[in-house]
Amino acid sequence: MDQTRQTLADLSEEQLLEQIMPLMPLIPGAGDHVAVGPGDDAAILRTDGATIVTTDAMIRGRDWRDDWSSPQDVGVKLVAQNVADVAAMGGRPTGLVVTLLADPATPLSWVVDFSEGLGSAARAAGVVVLGGDLSSAPAGTLAVSVTALGSLQGRSPVLRSGARPGDVVAVAGTLGRSGAGLLLLRQGRADVDPEVVAVHRRPEPPIAEGPRAAAAGATAMLDVSDGLLRDGARIGAASGVCLDFSRAALAPYAARLAPAVGEEAAWDCVLAGGEEHSLLACFPGIPADVPSGWTVIGLVRAGAGVAVDGQAHTPRGWDHFHG
Amino acid sequence: MDQTRQTLADLSEEQLLEQIMPLMPLIPGAGDHVAVGPGDDAAILRTDGATIVTTDAMIRGRDWRDDWSSPQDVGVKLVAQNVADVAAMGGRPTGLVVTLLADPATPLSWVVDFSEGLGSAARAAGVVVLGGDLSSAPAGTLAVSVTALGSLQGRSPVLRSGARPGDVVAVAGTLGRSGAGLLLLRQGRADVDPEVVAVHRRPEPPIAEGPRAAAAGATAMLDVSDGLLRDGARIGAASGVCLDFSRAALAPYAARLAPAVGEEAAWDCVLAGGEEHSLLACFPGIPADVPSGWTVIGLVRAGAGVAVDGQAHTPRGWDHFHG
Repeated sequence: MDQTRQTLADLSEEQLLEQIMPLMPLIPGAGDHVAVGPGDDAAILRTDGATIVTTDAMIRGRDWRDDWSSPQDVGVKLVAQNVADVAAMGGRPTGLVVTLLADPATPLSWVVDFSEGLGSAARAAGVVVLGGDLSSAPAGTLAVSVTALGSLQGRSPVLRSGARPGDVVAVAGTLGRSGAGLLLLRQGRADVDPEVVAVHRRPEPPIAEGPRAAAAGATAMLDVSDGLLRDGARIGAASGVCLDFSRAALAPYAARLAPAVGEEAAWDCVLAGGEEHSLLACFPGIPADVPSGWTVIGLVRAGAGVAVDGQAHTPRGWDHFHG
Repeated sequence: MDQTRQTLADLSEEQLLEQIMPLMPLIPGAGDHVAVGPGDDAAILRTDGATIVTTDAMIRGRDWRDDWSSPQDVGVKLVAQNVADVAAMGGRPTGLVVTLLADPATPLSWVVDFSEGLGSAARAAGVVVLGGDLSSAPAGTLAVSVTALGSLQGRSPVLRSGARPGDVVAVAGTLGRSGAGLLLLRQGRADVDPEVVAVHRRPEPPIAEGPRAAAAGATAMLDVSDGLLRDGARIGAASGVCLDFSRAALAPYAARLAPAVGEEAAWDCVLAGGEEHSLLACFPGIPADVPSGWTVIGLVRAGAGVAVDGQAHTPRGWDHFHG
């Protein structure tokens, strides 16, 4: 059979695994975290006293469109959003398991290309693929899910609840680019700014900055997945404080996007754009104490929620069953 | 609004979480494994030097039918099949994360009842629910997935690859009941033997026997998820041996089922019925050395695959994209 036209229904589970397993980083080069890899009832990861656990799924039609994202993009993004959650606790990602729920009519090539993207992103993040589950799904359904594990390497976790008035608020990574990229795709204008479209398709969370922030004494941290204001308000709510962002400090992020999407949409993307997976953290002390990979964008004040230049904002963002 | 008619589309994600989180065992009574529970970017599980990881999904229409399984049944079964995999490594399950991918038209009551089943099964297994992910899925799709973690408590894992000629083959738990239960449901005869139908709906893997077998020196182990012959052949292939089952030793399992489904189907269920999640293991030495929760049902011989009374069998069973 013409291999380019094969679907999952044409292969046994074993044959499918033979196609995708070579694409996965099963044993890392440095620091062997894997005692038992895929192929048994379960895998075994070497761990220390605390293991970080997080899970995140992506569904076609909701989390990606096939005409906007390649299968490789989906694999990269799925890893990115999971390892960002590990980094946001102050941890280093170590291993993951992956679930694929696919209509049997799904082309084999989609799954192979997705696996290539997932495998390459896992390799780049130093994460071992420990195993997974393949299941047939109803016609039209294609969903992928990862559970990622990570190590605190002896540090305490950085929760959302530790921010205190007087802390500075800082970000590692970009702001608003994923949102602007999505906007350009929606407008059919992806060619106007390929760089922000690339961030939407394949976010690159600054995962090394998570442990660095923890070591620097970050009091609260999360990854920006649902928008700066909405995620900032989560730290505010958990810590019982107000995160007050500086419009002047955010202006360069908006200025980067304005030529492509216009001034108003640029600010909208910076304040409310999701799926960026940059890290947002609070640090005690003066701005000069913030690690070098971080940019100060606000202050923690007494109060609740989020503000911009002292003016309270109602966060907008994404709700999973309402889109 | 009449709460009994609410669907997921009627609630925010926060409102949905308020409904289901109280149903989950978030912190175990004895032995606190949880450093950070749900609600932050990730959870943190206290771990020792080796963490067992496994994942398994269930999809409506493929893994259950709403007219045969209640939402509680689905929750119980999802936990059972995951913790069985942990036990089959010789480990004790400690924590899990859960993913729900649901058509927004899914009744809220389904999700609440599923959560109740999942929570009660997790509690019974001593497993903490560490977090999860909720996503809207295409119309008609309802899928649930768990990643379970476990501890080896300092023991070595029991793989599939350690069986040696001369070992005895033993089973902990029932055989064929889930398959017989499914057959009765298909025949519309569930009332003929409610006990086996209950095993199909809510398998009860003997998870305490996993660590017990490991401590007793089991050389190979797995849980019977795809049928005794097919799963036995997996140990055979991984260990380079033949698992030779004794028809006489299996006869009581078939005899239990024969009144409900007939002699021939009873043997079919015992040899090829899936989803039982009993444990199958090989032990060195004489039958008398096998722990008390285990029943000897065969011998490991030189050769390959599986046999019954010395006659080679070709395993039948389940393939995920071919059903």
